[in-house]
Amino acid sequence: MKKHCGLIIIDMQNDFVLPNSPFCVAGAYNTIPEISEILKVFREMQWPVFHVVREHRADGSDVEITRVKKFLEKKYCIPGTKGCEIIDALKPVPGEYRIVKTRFSAFMKTELDFILRRSDISHIVICGTQYPVCIRTTIFDGVSYGYHVTLITDATSAETPEIAETNIRDIKNIGVECLTVAEFSEVFGV
Amino acid sequence: MKKHCGLIIIDMQNDFVLPNSPFCVAGAYNTIPEISEILKVFREMQWPVFHVVREHRADGSDVEITRVKKFLEKKYCIPGTKGCEIIDALKPVPGEYRIVKTRFSAFMKTELDFILRRSDISHIVICGTQYPVCIRTTIFDGVSYGYHVTLITDATSAETPEIAETNIRDIKNIGVECLTVAEFSEVFGV
Repeated sequence: MKKHCGLIIIDMQNDFVLPNSPFCVAGAYNTIPEISEILKVFREMQWPVFHVVREHRADGSDVEITRVKKFLEKKYCIPGTKGCEIIDALKPVPGEYRIVKTRFSAFMKTELDFILRRSDISHIVICGTQYPVCIRTTIFDGVSYGYHVTLITDATSAETPEIAETNIRDIKNIGVECLTVAEFSEVFGV
Repeated sequence: MKKHCGLIIIDMQNDFVLPNSPFCVAGAYNTIPEISEILKVFREMQWPVFHVVREHRADGSDVEITRVKKFLEKKYCIPGTKGCEIIDALKPVPGEYRIVKTRFSAFMKTELDFILRRSDISHIVICGTQYPVCIRTTIFDGVSYGYHVTLITDATSAETPEIAETNIRDIKNIGVECLTVAEFSEVFGV
């Protein structure tokens, strides 16, 4: 199983993570050490890493229908801006994948599934932000497409600990493995 | 908006609703009056109705990967069984659509989106069971595909009221309209 394992880090962009950003997810900044740790494990094992990011056209034409109005008032994830970039601490290194999405799930209308299949990855390990939206939809799609999915709980964030907990409850209830970074290292012997 | 409105009722099958079924969702049975009420509104207005159901092959080959083991121990939604049928109180009438799914979202690998488009439906109204799984994934996919989505809160169920509430919180947070049947009738003037 281990050699077919891929790490998926979701939406750890300046706009969503830096505390002074208007779109900051409250819990995201504090997960940087844990994400760095799981990223280090994957780099050392030379297992594939996928950095999933949002990008949007400035006219809002590719923004979710419920968010267009707010987006046009204050834009986020515009390519070329500092806010759109992955935070410095988690910058991709050569050989890692960058996947651009415009919706909640990292699978929706992206090449993620194609690359995972070609890379012979049957097990995906998910972290990043935020629990009730992009994390959760990506997990449910991952299960639907037949991947074994592991969620790294302490490397994933939400606006509040309660939102995180209730989402972990629902995610566990569909049979997804939920581990901390430390538990992952133990279970996987890495 | 009203003339382009479709009702989607999810998974109200005997296996998931009848209290003596091993797969019964605890809250589902009690929503039958509210679902009947919203269904009556749509029938009177002659707006399209979609009954979404699960069906699975008995060998489990089309069951979600996290559920295969349990499914093979005790099967559900096998075509031809009583358990697979829509509950008597909500049986489709001629002219209503029956959509079969094998995954959480009613959009995943089904003809739902095709039929909605051809029917010129831009607004979908969702109810049924259960909140954290098929209801929620269908709502997030509906928003992703650009539909206006309304959730009928008292015509939708979960294992516990707390699971229902925390899911409604997350669903509201992405900008989805959440109304009771009574509120829907008022807002839509029906």
